[in-house]
This record gives sequence, C-alpha cells and structure tokens, in this order.
Amino acid sequence: MNLTSPSATVQPGDLVELISPTNKTYILRVESGKQLQTHRGVVNLDSLIGVPWGSEVTTHIGRSFFLLQPSLSDLLREIKRNTQILYTKDIGLILVMLGIGPGVHVLECGTGSGALTTALAWAVGPTGKVSTYEVKAPNQDLARKNIERLGFQDRVEFKLRDITEGFDETAADAVFLDLPNPYDYIDQVRAALKPGGFFGSILPTTNQVSRLVAALQRGSFAFVDVCEVILRFYKPVPERLRPTDRMVAHTGFLIFGRPMIPGSGLLPRIETPPGELQEERDSEELIGGGDPPDL
Amino acid sequence: MNLTSPSATVQPGDLVELISPTNKTYILRVESGKQLQTHRGVVNLDSLIGVPWGSEVTTHIGRSFFLLQPSLSDLLREIKRNTQILYTKDIGLILVMLGIGPGVHVLECGTGSGALTTALAWAVGPTGKVSTYEVKAPNQDLARKNIERLGFQDRVEFKLRDITEGFDETAADAVFLDLPNPYDYIDQVRAALKPGGFFGSILPTTNQVSRLVAALQRGSFAFVDVCEVILRFYKPVPERLRPTDRMVAHTGFLIFGRPMIPGSGLLPRIETPPGELQEERDSEELIGGGDPPDL
Amino acid sequence: MNLTSPSATVQPGDLVELISPTNKTYILRVESGKQLQTHRGVVNLDSLIGVPWGSEVTTHIGRSFFLLQPSLSDLLREIKRNTQILYTKDIGLILVMLGIGPGVHVLECGTGSGALTTALAWAVGPTGKVSTYEVKAPNQDLARKNIERLGFQDRVEFKLRDITEGFDETAADAVFLDLPNPYDYIDQVRAALKPGGFFGSILPTTNQVSRLVAALQRGSFAFVDVCEVILRFYKPVPERLRPTDRMVAHTGFLIFGRPMIPGSGLLPRIETPPGELQEERDSEELIGGGDPPDL
Amino acid sequence: MNLTSPSATVQPGDLVELISPTNKTYILRVESGKQLQTHRGVVNLDSLIGVPWGSEVTTHIGRSFFLLQPSLSDLLREIKRNTQILYTKDIGLILVMLGIGPGVHVLECGTGSGALTTALAWAVGPTGKVSTYEVKAPNQDLARKNIERLGFQDRVEFKLRDITEGFDETAADAVFLDLPNPYDYIDQVRAALKPGGFFGSILPTTNQVSRLVAALQRGSFAFVDVCEVILRFYKPVPERLRPTDRMVAHTGFLIFGRPMIPGSGLLPRIETPPGELQEERDSEELIGGGDPPDL
Repeated sequence: MNLTSPSATVQPGDLVELISPTNKTYILRVESGKQLQTHRGVVNLDSLIGVPWGSEVTTHIGRSFFLLQPSLSDLLREIKRNTQILYTKDIGLILVMLGIGPGVHVLECGTGSGALTTALAWAVGPTGKVSTYEVKAPNQDLARKNIERLGFQDRVEFKLRDITEGFDETAADAVFLDLPNPYDYIDQVRAALKPGGFFGSILPTTNQVSRLVAALQRGSFAFVDVCEVILRFYKPVPERLRPTDRMVAHTGFLIFGRPMIPGSGLLPRIETPPGELQEERDSEELIGGGDPPDL
Repeated sequence: MNLTSPSATVQPGDLVELISPTNKTYILRVESGKQLQTHRGVVNLDSLIGVPWGSEVTTHIGRSFFLLQPSLSDLLREIKRNTQILYTKDIGLILVMLGIGPGVHVLECGTGSGALTTALAWAVGPTGKVSTYEVKAPNQDLARKNIERLGFQDRVEFKLRDITEGFDETAADAVFLDLPNPYDYIDQVRAALKPGGFFGSILPTTNQVSRLVAALQRGSFAFVDVCEVILRFYKPVPERLRPTDRMVAHTGFLIFGRPMIPGSGLLPRIETPPGELQEERDSEELIGGGDPPDL
Repeated sequence: MNLTSPSATVQPGDLVELISPTNKTYILRVESGKQLQTHRGVVNLDSLIGVPWGSEVTTHIGRSFFLLQPSLSDLLREIKRNTQILYTKDIGLILVMLGIGPGVHVLECGTGSGALTTALAWAVGPTGKVSTYEVKAPNQDLARKNIERLGFQDRVEFKLRDITEGFDETAADAVFLDLPNPYDYIDQVRAALKPGGFFGSILPTTNQVSRLVAALQRGSFAFVDVCEVILRFYKPVPERLRPTDRMVAHTGFLIFGRPMIPGSGLLPRIETPPGELQEERDSEELIGGGDPPDL
Repeated sequence: MNLTSPSATVQPGDLVELISPTNKTYILRVESGKQLQTHRGVVNLDSLIGVPWGSEVTTHIGRSFFLLQPSLSDLLREIKRNTQILYTKDIGLILVMLGIGPGVHVLECGTGSGALTTALAWAVGPTGKVSTYEVKAPNQDLARKNIERLGFQDRVEFKLRDITEGFDETAADAVFLDLPNPYDYIDQVRAALKPGGFFGSILPTTNQVSRLVAALQRGSFAFVDVCEVILRFYKPVPERLRPTDRMVAHTGFLIFGRPMIPGSGLLPRIETPPGELQEERDSEELIGGGDPPDL
C-alpha cells in the first residue's frame, strides 16, 4: 500500500501530518466533525478537506501548521509505544539486507510496539505477509492499533505466544528476532526459514552479539555479518555547514546470517566476513572507476 | 516482485548465487546446457536444477561452492558498473526516507549503472513505477541490462536525456537526483513532484551540500535533512569480537527535503532540523522507557 | 610541573578533587581553616590533611566523597569558563601533532577561558613557554585565574591585543589559532613560526575549513591535514558492554600544516594528504605484522 | 627534550625528515660524510648543513625533497617495528588521560617496538622517567635502538622480564599495560601505583574489555572509562572538501581507571561513567554558552 494519496488535495479519511514551525508534529486521520486541539489553537478537520498537500493552514487563533502526508519515517517516529522501538536508520538496512520487498513473507518475534512490524507490512505490500509473535498482550494490543491506524491489518498476522515451541510457519523468506536472547531460538528459526533464507536480529550489548554469533555458527548459518548503522546529522545551514553537536551513539548491533543445509559439507570459513569483502570489492571498483563525481 | 523463489530447490531460469568458502561470488541465471567456468573448476548449470537452496555443490574438480538465492544487497554489490554506484547502506535509508514501497511512482536522474534503479524497482513492486533519466547512452545500456537480468523491465521507464527542460512527469511520489549539480534542477523537481512529496539526493562534498541546501531553501523546500550513514562492521568471532580494522569512511552526504507550496506563508524555520528533533524525541522515549532490554 | 603530589597523603596547599558516588566533582586547594559546602554536607579542609590519596572521606552528615588528585582531564572539564572550551579529546591530538612537549615555546590566539592554555602550559613544563593573545579583557582575566590556580603563571605570558599587527615572537616552535577567522592571519603565523614549524587550528564549520585550507595553500604551507577526533564511550559493565546511548557528535575540525620557505620550488602536491598516507602505511604494517594480539 | 632544534638551519647531528612531493619520507640523523640513497637519487648529508628548515633540497639527479624537523607523530609513524604499535590518535588521549607531563614517572608493560615508550619519554621530559617492561629480548633491542636514535635513553629504564612478580617500583604516577591479558596483573598495578594514580590499557576485542573492567572493579578501581578514539581525515581540497574514502576503523579500546584504597568504604557506583558525565556537563556548558563561534 502506497502511503501517499493519489490526490493533490486532502480527502476524507486521509492520514495527515500537521507540523508547526517549531517541528511539533501531529499525525491523525481526517474524520468529519472532529477537531485537533493543540497548544497553538484548534483545527477543524473538516476545514482540511480539499486543501492541497504542502499548504500552510492556520488554527482558530491564526497560528500556522504545515499540512503533509506522513512519511514512513514520520510514522515510525510518532508511533505510540510502550517498548523501545527500532530506529529508521536500522530499519532501512534491515529491509534491504533481509530482502523485504513486495510479496515477501517475513516472520518477526517479538512484536513490541509494532514499529518494525509497520515497516515490514509497508514494504511487503498487499501481496506479502508479516507473521509477528509476542508474549505480552498489552504490547500486541498496542501494535495492533498502530497497524490498524495505517490500514495494514490484512497483511499482518498477530500471534500471542512465545516461540520456544517453534513458529507455525515453515518456509518463510526471512525471520527477524527482536528479543534479548535470540541465541536460544536458532533451531526454531531454521525450521521456519526456507533453506538459504534471511535471518536478522538486533542486540544492544557485545556480550549478546558474541553469544548469537556462536549460536549461528553452531547452527550452520553462514555469511554472518555484524554491523552498526551510525547516522550522523548536519545542521542544514549552507554558510555554516557542520555536524550536529550531539548524536545517537548506539541503538544496537545488527546481526545477519543465512542458514545452510547442515551436513552438506564444510561451511564457508567466516574469517573474512562478507561485509568486509563487500567493502573491499566496492573499494576496488572505486579505485578503478575513480572517485564519485564531485565537480 | 519477490527475489526469492517459491521453490525449495533450484528451478530452470532461477537466479542463483554461488559463493566459495573464500567468498568469491558468482551470480547468474540457470540456463540449460550452459557452464560456469571458475578458477575452482567448472559447474554445469543443469546439475544445479533440483538442488535445495543452501546446499554445497562441487565443481568438476571437487571444489565446493554454496548455492544461494542472491539477496538485493548481493545483487547490488555484484552489479556490472561503469560508474560509481550507491552503497547498500545508503540505499536502505533512501528507500525509507523517500517512502519507496509497493505501488509508488519514483523519478531518478541519473540512471548511472542502475544500482539505485534496481533497488527502486525492487521496492515499488509490479504495481509501482520507476522513471529514470540519463544523458549517456552507454550508462543507460548497461543499466537496462542490469534491470532486465532481474526481470524488472516492466516497471522501469528509461529516458535518454537531461532534465534541464524538466521531467515528463508531474505528480511523482518521490524524486531522487544522483547528479553533481542537483541545485540546478530544483524547479524541475518541484514541477515533477506532488506537493509535499519526497526529494532526495546524494553528494560527496560539503561544498555541494551547502549549495543544494541553499537552493532547497530558496525553492520553498522544508524539513531539509542532511546526514551520513556510517556502517561499521565487526569481525564475527564470538570470543574475539571487535570492529574490522578498516572501513569505508565516506560515500556521500544524503540530503532530503519536501516541497511546500510557495507563498502559502512563512516557511518552517530550519533552525532545528527534523532529524535532530527525531533523535531528541526518541531519546526522551528512551529515557522514559528505559534502555533497550539487554538481559 | 607534575600535577601529582610527591606525597602519598594530602598536604596543605595541595589541589584536591572530591568526587561523590554520583560523580559530583569539586576541585579546590586545601587551605587551612576553610570549608567546602555541598549538598551532601560540609567538609573541613583541615581534616583532609594527612589523608591518603584514594581514600573515602565523609561530610559532617556522614555522606562520602572520594579524595583524588585531579587529572589534567578533570581540570579541563571543571575549568571556569565564559567561552566554549576545547575538549580533552581534541587537546590530546593537538599536543601530539604540534609537538608540544617539555621546553617548547608555543603561541596561542585567542586565550578564551584558558583551557587549551592550561594544557599547553602543563605540557611545555617549567622550561617551556606559552604566549597567549586575547582581545577581550574578561576572557583574559578568567584565563589568568585558571592558570594561577594551577601555579602555571611563570610559564604563561598573557597579551591583551589582537594579532592583526602580528605576534611579538619570531621563532616559535608552534602556533595554535582558536579564532573564527584564522585564514586572515596566515602571514602573521608565518612570521612568528620557525620555518618548518607547527601550525594548528580548530573550526566548527566546513565552510571555515575550506577557507583556511585555501589560505594555507596560498601561504606555502604543506602537509596540511584536516581531521576530526570522535570519542566514543562505552558503559563499563562487563556483562553488558555497549556504547553509551548518546555522544558528542562534533566539536570542531582540526587543521594542521607546516610552513615551507616560499619560492624554494614546487610545493608538495596535496593530493595525498599525509594523514591518509599515514593510515595506509600503518595499515600495511598491520597486514605485514598481523592483527594486534588479542588472545 | 624539545624535538625541534633551536637553530633556523640544519646543524650537524640534527634529526631531519626528507619528504618527497609524493610523501615518501626519510628520517635520519645528519652525520658528516654520509649519504642517503633513494629511488629519487642521492643526497649528501653534508650538503644539508646550514640549509634552512622548510627548504626544498635536490638529489644528485635534481629530484626534490622537503627538509623538515620530524614531528613526534612523524617519528611514531616511521618507527622501526616488529610488533603492532600504538597510533598517534590513541597516544594523544593516553598522554592527557594519564597526566603524562614533565617530571612524571610512568611504568609501561610491554615495551613492544617502543612507540608508546617514545611518546612517554618525550612527554615526561628530562626530569621524568619511563620504566618499561618486556619479555622478548628482540623487542627490547629494537625499542632501545628507537629510543637511542632520539637521545631519550637517559630517561628510559628497560627491564627484560614479565610482571607476574610485580613491578620494582612502588609509587609511580601512572601505569600503562599494553598486553593481551592486563586483567591478570591488577594486583601488581595497584602495588606499583600511587594511591589514586592513573591506570590505562588498550585492548582490541570487546571480550578482553569485559574481563578487564570486571578485574578493575574487583580490584577497587573507580572512575573506569572505556572509549575509542576514531580519527576521521578529510581531503584538504578547499572547493571539494570531503572525508577520505576509507579510514582506520579500529585500533583498540582504551580503558582507564584509578585505584582507590580498598576497604575504605563503598566504592563509587559505576552506573554513570565519568566519561558520560563529562559529556553531559560539557554539553550543558555548551547549551549555556551557546554553540562554538562559527561566524
């Protein structure tokens, strides 16, 4: 499902984002007869219908908001949560590394507040499917609300149980574990994944990473990558361009791997991780092809 | 289109990836009667048919390869190229920040070797569309071959011209410029994008970033973010976990923005960029919700 | 001058650091008859005399503090300031890159609150000299107090004027400019430095860096390095080791260079900066010598 | 000892650095009657005497070199080695964090090729002292040659033995361990250090860091900091300023701590590491004092 509306103006039922000049943000659905109450005044939602996207609108006391369609990143940032959620920076890499595109069937455990679930559901589209497991009912309830707000409920299956007994699925394209102890569920992941499928996880501490990598190696996973995504923002001032003063230093380590068929022979040695090779190769290309154009 | 096959075994016509224990990688389509020649011996492609994904296979001299379906990241890394291409780390963030999901219509200029084109085509799926502009015929020819190899040709429209006279499209969901001088085409971007749509670009030097940010501000773009994605790999050795010795330090700065309707009033002040706000908000949540679980 | 005392116990006149279990820090000189008032109670300074360094001491209400000699880093962190000061991470590299050791004569402009002045005075020792220029009297007054508190006044010469007319010195070992517009004083730096001496500066924005590098190249400086020091802290918890959540992302860009004799011929081409070469060479050594031992 | 000569011209016995336009570097002492043989021709060392520092000189076939006094960083980079050596970026922080200035007495184990020994000897000056322990005679021999080349032998004491039985010293200002298993020598470090003195170490893997932090906590060390110094270079091209393409991603984690008197009471809780506090405090100052000046 395309999050952007086909119309150039706001229609009833559209999801809108109102952003103040100081970046105070509201995301809500346009329902007739309703109002948005803010510190900057009241907006009658009816008054938004027919207004072009990208316009400035004003409250009853004349304070302005900008009217936009929320991006996926906006939605994730503003999602209601009762757990730590994944960051956009990590989600972008996870989607690409796990091949989460239209039509894919992906498993997730745990659901948490549903931020990654939202991104997965968005990326697999109406022809794909997300099966998400969670042990805490309040988390699942919140995640379900977050998913329903975006109309993604038809492509998401919620399960309220742990995965000690395994996933119900047996040929998923990809599995992502957002748990403190993913290393305890490697057999379950193997059973649920297609051979050669995509596994990913996120963990905050190096100790957990060591345990997971060891478990993946014991479990005949190959092409294991461990990495961090560090996103550095700049102040967008043309004549005084500089990085921001402070930044998020750490969210988690991302771990990826692919299950091989055990007993089929020697596993690839992991001495040179694919990630490093990738960089070497790219670097060679870079040397061969010259620097990026920067005229 | 799902890059992963519905079958658990290799079928004629499948795209396969053969990876040696030292990470030498070949990506090719299984065509009957053909052979793959490598330094490690010959593989008859017919012999791969019916083999389970994730298996070890051997050449005529008994050297082994692992048989996998290539991931998007693998495909991008191995893409044939005659230009610098975008890295997976940057592509992941671009897709999420620009909202490139199923059904989206996105414009790109220039095509280059088609690496980003490939990722865009993969992400928009069969119901979406990528219109990509390029001035050099050899680049376009190579990009077209890269796209056709993956079967994405139905969702990609190639155009061989520059965009000085503008794009042909007028209501695209998103526009990405991979050009040395994107600041010269801001009016063209505005004309091609839906109001409030998504704009992105990548530039290697700080001088270009300053010029682009200035042009975006003059052109009534708001919510301008400038950032870098730094991807740091770790050696996946459980008892000696550590970052790799060397890394890619810089590919480019990513710049994002959204066009507002000019003259609709004061533009949001850009003093606090959304990116920073995002981090602050997330950080507050983090403080409120405690650290990520790391038991 | 050695900041650490020759005695194992506190002596009258010693500079002491009192640190609470929550890291609240006080740095002060032990003067007889005086008291330290804190939120955790009162400490009579006389009572500290004769107490071993590294001890726990208690206030009149039984709350504890740890008694240490302040490190240079502690002193810099706690320095009284009315300007932005340099960070320890940057000061460490500046000292090494500019060769600031015992007996050196170094020039600084501007003095600011005297944080870098303090570090320079500490590093050059009693046989060295720091000449520091400042245009604002309140800054100089504060810096002078900070220097006198540590007993470094004999090795620091304070000058209250700008450097448009040049420095008074003509054969300094090193010059550091902490000014917004160092590019306006390159001739003055040349005149004050020994040929082949060491120049350094710190600047927050990329635009300023571009201007300074251009001025250095016009001014026959060679071996120009531009770099950033990024210091990343980890939570020191053995079983849950991980980077801190947030970090200082940017303080400034450091720029170094060495003046050559103009007209003596072609200047070294700057295409491959020494910094990069250094890394390449070190990396080769690393390849040749194997990874650091990590058994 | 000041590495820079008091004379504006080369004198017999001076240590000189010859750098080609492509950054090929030679560091040697000017001895009468000797020659330097290079791929770019021969330089008679006698011909350098009386030449001003910062000049261009030519070989017998007219190829040019620049004549400079080597910086400490140059010396460390070019040091003869048979072990992995510390990088300038790490040495800078170590000197400042351990308070290594004029007059200090510091212990080191192991000596290795003597790179850190060189930096320590330079920083403590003629009134300070470095006692350095090493178990391998060839390492010590090489380190001794490196130290003697710079004339630092009077301030360095070499010991050829391990530290299992302890250091000979009992009231050192600082101790640095460059060993794979520093956690096995915490008692020895305590016995050698002044109470409240400075301890530091460098380790490549997270597993080692966890073990060392645990040992320091058991050993009543407080104010334990774990950090990494990441040095990012920029291409010094004013109109195309950008980070270098690749960088050193990891040399080692730096660990610092200070021994408290055991049994003197509760140790400071380590929940909020000083490093983080430092950043918070600096950040508050930064907020209070405004951004660094960047006009």
